[in-house]
Amino acid sequence: MKVSILMGSTSDLEVMTPAMKTLEEFGIEYEKRVISAHRAPDLLREYVTTARDRGVVTIIAGAGGAAHLPGVTAAMTTVPVIGVPILGKALGGLDALLSMVQMPSGVPVATVGINGSKNAALLAVQIIALQDESTLAKLEAFRKQQTEKIVNTII
Amino acid sequence: MKVSILMGSTSDLEVMTPAMKTLEEFGIEYEKRVISAHRAPDLLREYVTTARDRGVVTIIAGAGGAAHLPGVTAAMTTVPVIGVPILGKALGGLDALLSMVQMPSGVPVATVGINGSKNAALLAVQIIALQDESTLAKLEAFRKQQTEKIVNTII
Amino acid sequence: MKVSILMGSTSDLEVMTPAMKTLEEFGIEYEKRVISAHRAPDLLREYVTTARDRGVVTIIAGAGGAAHLPGVTAAMTTVPVIGVPILGKALGGLDALLSMVQMPSGVPVATVGINGSKNAALLAVQIIALQDESTLAKLEAFRKQQTEKIVNTII
Amino acid sequence: MKVSILMGSTSDLEVMTPAMKTLEEFGIEYEKRVISAHRAPDLLREYVTTARDRGVVTIIAGAGGAAHLPGVTAAMTTVPVIGVPILGKALGGLDALLSMVQMPSGVPVATVGINGSKNAALLAVQIIALQDESTLAKLEAFRKQQTEKIVNTII
Amino acid sequence: MKVSILMGSTSDLEVMTPAMKTLEEFGIEYEKRVISAHRAPDLLREYVTTARDRGVVTIIAGAGGAAHLPGVTAAMTTVPVIGVPILGKALGGLDALLSMVQMPSGVPVATVGINGSKNAALLAVQIIALQDESTLAKLEAFRKQQTEKIVNTII
Amino acid sequence: MKVSILMGSTSDLEVMTPAMKTLEEFGIEYEKRVISAHRAPDLLREYVTTARDRGVVTIIAGAGGAAHLPGVTAAMTTVPVIGVPILGKALGGLDALLSMVQMPSGVPVATVGINGSKNAALLAVQIIALQDESTLAKLEAFRKQQTEKIVNTII
Amino acid sequence: MKVSILMGSTSDLEVMTPAMKTLEEFGIEYEKRVISAHRAPDLLREYVTTARDRGVVTIIAGAGGAAHLPGVTAAMTTVPVIGVPILGKALGGLDALLSMVQMPSGVPVATVGINGSKNAALLAVQIIALQDESTLAKLEAFRKQQTEKIVNTII
Amino acid sequence: MKVSILMGSTSDLEVMTPAMKTLEEFGIEYEKRVISAHRAPDLLREYVTTARDRGVVTIIAGAGGAAHLPGVTAAMTTVPVIGVPILGKALGGLDALLSMVQMPSGVPVATVGINGSKNAALLAVQIIALQDESTLAKLEAFRKQQTEKIVNTII
Repeated sequence: MKVSILMGSTSDLEVMTPAMKTLEEFGIEYEKRVISAHRAPDLLREYVTTARDRGVVTIIAGAGGAAHLPGVTAAMTTVPVIGVPILGKALGGLDALLSMVQMPSGVPVATVGINGSKNAALLAVQIIALQDESTLAKLEAFRKQQTEKIVNTII
Repeated sequence: MKVSILMGSTSDLEVMTPAMKTLEEFGIEYEKRVISAHRAPDLLREYVTTARDRGVVTIIAGAGGAAHLPGVTAAMTTVPVIGVPILGKALGGLDALLSMVQMPSGVPVATVGINGSKNAALLAVQIIALQDESTLAKLEAFRKQQTEKIVNTII
Repeated sequence: MKVSILMGSTSDLEVMTPAMKTLEEFGIEYEKRVISAHRAPDLLREYVTTARDRGVVTIIAGAGGAAHLPGVTAAMTTVPVIGVPILGKALGGLDALLSMVQMPSGVPVATVGINGSKNAALLAVQIIALQDESTLAKLEAFRKQQTEKIVNTII
Repeated sequence: MKVSILMGSTSDLEVMTPAMKTLEEFGIEYEKRVISAHRAPDLLREYVTTARDRGVVTIIAGAGGAAHLPGVTAAMTTVPVIGVPILGKALGGLDALLSMVQMPSGVPVATVGINGSKNAALLAVQIIALQDESTLAKLEAFRKQQTEKIVNTII
Repeated sequence: MKVSILMGSTSDLEVMTPAMKTLEEFGIEYEKRVISAHRAPDLLREYVTTARDRGVVTIIAGAGGAAHLPGVTAAMTTVPVIGVPILGKALGGLDALLSMVQMPSGVPVATVGINGSKNAALLAVQIIALQDESTLAKLEAFRKQQTEKIVNTII
Repeated sequence: MKVSILMGSTSDLEVMTPAMKTLEEFGIEYEKRVISAHRAPDLLREYVTTARDRGVVTIIAGAGGAAHLPGVTAAMTTVPVIGVPILGKALGGLDALLSMVQMPSGVPVATVGINGSKNAALLAVQIIALQDESTLAKLEAFRKQQTEKIVNTII
Repeated sequence: MKVSILMGSTSDLEVMTPAMKTLEEFGIEYEKRVISAHRAPDLLREYVTTARDRGVVTIIAGAGGAAHLPGVTAAMTTVPVIGVPILGKALGGLDALLSMVQMPSGVPVATVGINGSKNAALLAVQIIALQDESTLAKLEAFRKQQTEKIVNTII
Repeated sequence: MKVSILMGSTSDLEVMTPAMKTLEEFGIEYEKRVISAHRAPDLLREYVTTARDRGVVTIIAGAGGAAHLPGVTAAMTTVPVIGVPILGKALGGLDALLSMVQMPSGVPVATVGINGSKNAALLAVQIIALQDESTLAKLEAFRKQQTEKIVNTII
């Protein structure tokens, strides 16, 4: 079981890095690729349609602007696709968010917050934890730790 | 493996019905409950924290306005939570969408489109299909049928 | 030289009809098809990649919500693609507009106004008129008539 | 009578500081805590349900993004809750504002402007002044001084 | 102790009626007036500046469009002012919401959701309950009943 | 005939300066004052209700956030009031714009663009030019010069 | 002294009618014309450039969508131009509002609220009242009457 | 066959430069001019109405704010007009986008993304490629190269 992290452009790498770090913390294997839905549609098709066979159980796709990458990906696979809208210079990220989340009936994209790649990874972890006891244990520990950090915060 | 369908109010029932119908079409068992995050927080807590033990593998939560239901649910479980923003009279649904999707790091909600309960159910089906060959087969068949319907559309 | 009119769903037909009527008024041949970018990506690919060979000089694509159809189309052809954002129930059409117009560098979509299929057709006519004297003459006549109608309006 | 100042994250501290300073200027006692509604729901519950017994008469809760903190707080107490939407990187603060203000019938949050923690404190002062003559006197003096500052501004 | 319910126009009466009903259910005395901040500024001034002396402990002000009524009211009294943004034909209520909530430092308005007059009344009840045991008891009962209604909802 | 330039805070001075410079270029006398509608309502009232008697023929009022200054001013005089929405940190100026422009029937504010104080001044000049031949001549010259500058721009 | 009322289309007539009625109530002469900035630019030019010579002292221009009419008009005359944004099916009127109000430096449009043609007329009346004692008297009477109506409203 | 690049102000030059570079890369001749629709309407008229005779086959017009330049241009010619909305300080570019794209029926503007001048140029190239085999070959090569760059990206 591994996760695929896609992004539309190398300029999205910084925003997508927390997803990678999070998967690493959970010891989950992942692939990472830059494949633009618009500039390399054939490559995307080849990559996505073979993903399940490579053991990919969730695809995380980050994109900005008319952020079609997760939707186009979701159209070509039945593996769950998580979309990360990426903040651009204009419109405060609303363009990427709406382009991802408002998918038509039949082809869903699980959208997280703007620049929320860490949460996308955690969602993938939650999906994997449904099948994997060890990942579930790590997830529960992560949540507990996260809570304790708050409990111990003094200002 | 079953799905839980939550909604904040009985007035959300109509919008959430396609999720139920979709799960029925896939032969997936589901629970359905009206539990307001704001008006019945204790009930929600009890319901959500015991969900995994009841065999729930995905929770679909629909809400409108300051749509906290999916986020509050996600805070109390590590089962994946899918949020369905529900269109209200004002603001064109933007309030429910942003209240769901913009979750803080650490607690993700997988958000679908406004009133997109059918897609929420399909996402749950995709998650279940990762573990269940028979569901995967039905999902592939659903997608094929969906495609064929388009192919055969004449206008 | 002909125009292709695409739409993502039969529910878009009413909004796209003025495009067809306009092309008919100008005596321009057109194809019309319902092909969802998400539900029938292979069909779309086949249709779009062969369009130029069929004599298509402009593709008009209408879609609502996360309106990927024109962008995905534009990614697969160098024929000019005109996008028509279609008004949905939520968000006042902003979702379809942003999903179309905010295309990444390298793959443009010529976007017109929300539900503006007539203007999409007129843009196609303008493009054809660059090569066809008779279409240019009709276009100039259309504009003159349009102007005269205003000039003669009495309220 | 004291005020509670809550925030979802230590990163909110800077925005919430004017609330603290304002309460200090009025000589009103306050508690301050970082408790995330999503990362530490049990702690929040314990803290909020015991607030009235500790003499808290108003809770000021600041949060950004899907800013559930004030709403979740309001769901667990009948002490008035004032929400301060906090500006994030994306969406110009609209997400936090809508997530707070659009509460469902039955559980209100008194929302102030984006980053408006000083006004949240003044609202708390106004509520306390209903019962406390000395606070009322200070409030009237504050307002008079505020007015005089304007009257004497020369540009 | 009584509440004042203000509105900018008789056309706001329908939206403001739930506030009145709610106060009646709690047995709280209230005044109701139509006073436009723009069309009758002197009347508003006279009304607001004498409110505290008449025993008013909270003013609820509803208005649409450039909804200045609560802000202008708040500028003339130190009694807490709750603003109810009223949905108009254009802009989905965003105009009224922003015109109320974005008050400058020094003069707060406690804003509730669009058309949320019932919640405005409940906020007033919460403020009164800080001083009045009997109102607090009714409020706790109201909350309990509201919760039970959810608990007993079967769909 | 003179113009009055009002602003809600000294922090608005920079944005309002182009209005002053423009009036100086046209040789039009003006008053300038910082008077907050919310923090100094009595001063504003006194200032505005006596403006016509001081020879003021247009009032330019700049404000940000819940920008009530021009509307409150317009409510107290029949002298034309021009509103300048001022860009704040949040919401891209939309709050100030909507708070000004969406005035109720009966009390208009002539709103210009966000931070558009120069245009507010030019509007005042246009109003004065209706009565003053010399100002009209200067205005025509200004426009001609402005046009020539464009005509002579080489890139 | 007369006012000109322009609109971009006969479909705008209903929204613009209150402007006409208001001018009639004040006994102010007006012209009314449908002239589209886009469909009849030459007619508009001829009409606008001769307006001052016909005694027009203010032009009121209503338009929807990409509402260029007032801006294009303002570019061709130094007579004050008041813009009325007209609500369309999509976007809640935001398109028309922004297209009018955000004019570049040098060419102002005095924008009123969405569908606010009555206020546009009142603004014209205020401008005329600067030169005409009788109009000023009527305006003061109108305001007084408007105020009295509020004062006498009982609910 | 040449392209015309218009902009409303010299401050738009930086945003419009990628359009020029792109046309140069394709060896397409172009004119470039700064002509404000509002400050130099006569010059614009003269320039636009003679464009076709000078061999212009597409006009690219960039503007910010109430971005009328492409619409006014389109009203005076039947040559296809492509609009480039330019990001300003306020409103995240939404003003320029809506002012361009929401053109009335009869006069289309082909709008591209905010600051998307490169895509505007590519659209012009696509239009020219309909008539010119050599441009089509370069366009296909450009697309292939663009795809290969993605294919070879390693992160």
